[in-house]
Amino acid sequence: MTESSPPRRPTMEDVAEVAGVSRGTVSRVLNGGHYVSPDASAAVQRAIRKTGYVVNQHARSLVTQRSDSVAFILSDPQDRLFEDPNFNILLKGCTQALAERDITLLLTVAGTQEDRKRVGRWVTAGHVDGVLLVSEHAGSPLIGELRSRGLPIVAAGRPIGHEREISYVAADDRDGARQMVSHLRSRGYRTIGIITGPVDTPGGVDRLAGYHDVLGRSDKKLIVHGDYSQASGAAAMEELLRRVPDIDAVFVCSDLMALGALAALQRAGKRVPEDIAIGGFDDSKAAVSSTPQLTTIRQDFTRVSTEMVRLLLDSIGTDTRSAVILPTELVIRDST
Amino acid sequence: MTESSPPRRPTMEDVAEVAGVSRGTVSRVLNGGHYVSPDASAAVQRAIRKTGYVVNQHARSLVTQRSDSVAFILSDPQDRLFEDPNFNILLKGCTQALAERDITLLLTVAGTQEDRKRVGRWVTAGHVDGVLLVSEHAGSPLIGELRSRGLPIVAAGRPIGHEREISYVAADDRDGARQMVSHLRSRGYRTIGIITGPVDTPGGVDRLAGYHDVLGRSDKKLIVHGDYSQASGAAAMEELLRRVPDIDAVFVCSDLMALGALAALQRAGKRVPEDIAIGGFDDSKAAVSSTPQLTTIRQDFTRVSTEMVRLLLDSIGTDTRSAVILPTELVIRDST
Repeated sequence: MTESSPPRRPTMEDVAEVAGVSRGTVSRVLNGGHYVSPDASAAVQRAIRKTGYVVNQHARSLVTQRSDSVAFILSDPQDRLFEDPNFNILLKGCTQALAERDITLLLTVAGTQEDRKRVGRWVTAGHVDGVLLVSEHAGSPLIGELRSRGLPIVAAGRPIGHEREISYVAADDRDGARQMVSHLRSRGYRTIGIITGPVDTPGGVDRLAGYHDVLGRSDKKLIVHGDYSQASGAAAMEELLRRVPDIDAVFVCSDLMALGALAALQRAGKRVPEDIAIGGFDDSKAAVSSTPQLTTIRQDFTRVSTEMVRLLLDSIGTDTRSAVILPTELVIRDST
Repeated sequence: MTESSPPRRPTMEDVAEVAGVSRGTVSRVLNGGHYVSPDASAAVQRAIRKTGYVVNQHARSLVTQRSDSVAFILSDPQDRLFEDPNFNILLKGCTQALAERDITLLLTVAGTQEDRKRVGRWVTAGHVDGVLLVSEHAGSPLIGELRSRGLPIVAAGRPIGHEREISYVAADDRDGARQMVSHLRSRGYRTIGIITGPVDTPGGVDRLAGYHDVLGRSDKKLIVHGDYSQASGAAAMEELLRRVPDIDAVFVCSDLMALGALAALQRAGKRVPEDIAIGGFDDSKAAVSSTPQLTTIRQDFTRVSTEMVRLLLDSIGTDTRSAVILPTELVIRDST
């Protein structure tokens, strides 16, 4: 700028040029810098001082339409939220990770297709900056709706059929299942059944795949499906006892269903693990509240939640997609 | 309108005049009719047909800025949401009552003053049509903030210090407490203590008042404060046993705290009700899961939630305020 030119008010473009970043990056820094690398943020701050750029608060909110909030959509009936201790951990982890960035988490329960339509309308109307999807079932219209509006999404668990379109954070379900079934076999159990989760959920599909990885194509009578609830675990266990009276071990694909299975075995007069071994999945509170305490597969929901928030904030800024698969770990207790 | 006048496009004012209602009522009918009486709604529909009024969808949303969503703000740490079964019932009731009107409920947890500020900013930015406040403590900045922005609010429980400003739905805490303490006295108990809720909550204040109504100014040693959590009930019971070893009954102001008190009594080798009687409050799941089952005061959280939604939708339409006090009822079981 020469002395002869009239004083001109510096623009956001000027800041971007001086900082060597895009206008979008400047905009994001001005809006709290949530989605910008520390280096880029520092460069923008320096450029603002150098150019003397003054932020117009009102214009800013008109342009960016940032709401500083994120929706946490639970695609399950509300009772599951309160029944399953995993949700508390996941919700708390996400709430805290967002609060550290001054972003509000809004939980909404979309247990029916109608709920999902209504919630889809709301979140795509600009009220939130992104969406954390939890317990999404295959075939739900929600992901397509959110995707078509360009809203950043991160799913908890593999989003069946949308793995290439949206980011997700998942525990390694398949490997966890392999660890459990290998453990049962190494303890000498021979007739190993499985109570799966719903087969339209990744945990339902992938843990069953891990079971087959170890046992090959096992007898179909040994496979019963539950819905992750305690009641479904009890019903599935009763079904297995009817079908295969000499069954000597069951991999139950959630700790909560395992509690139900233990109750059913107690009613049937079976001792655990003397008559039949039970392995769970989750390493939730349920695993240590039971008698006997459950051998289970640990998945770290606190880490799942912080990774989900990280990916979401990344994807708001950059429209990149990625998957984070966290390791699972066998925890041996008294039920196997 | 005469034949000689040029064709004029009918306006919302024309509809209002023909229907004999305000322009605001027409606007509300056009936006789903959530907050309008059936009669007024029918009159507006007739007037629309008569005048040939055509709705401009885009202009409508610009004018009304309705979001068709309501925030459910829990001013307590998140763990309380999952620990206390009352919240599940309240949340489910509100979610369902709103879903019937095609309105989305958004839950957000504001456990700290910082959370409340952030949530206050978000809800007053036009993302929701109204707020359901739960577990609000006296002195929180949230009510003032929401009020100053003119956002419709309904509180669960008496909003201490704001009773004339905002609508609320409460169980009759004071009368419930009177019923319980009278019951304990009629059973012959003479040294009756109380474990209260937090004294910055209506349940904390009003149930203690009911206790005093029956017993007059009792010995201060008989009064200990809890925070509604199970752990605080256990600690308060231990404190009472230390202070008043010959205590023979305790009114514990929530079932969950009563569970804690029962555990403390068991550890102290006291039998309930033979050595000491315990009365709870809520008639929640906790009351029937304990041994012995709890004598308690029933409050109907399902009805609280439907009344809250009704009042909120009313106040969005009309800016009226009212309080609904629902009766409470003694339920006698085995602990007294």
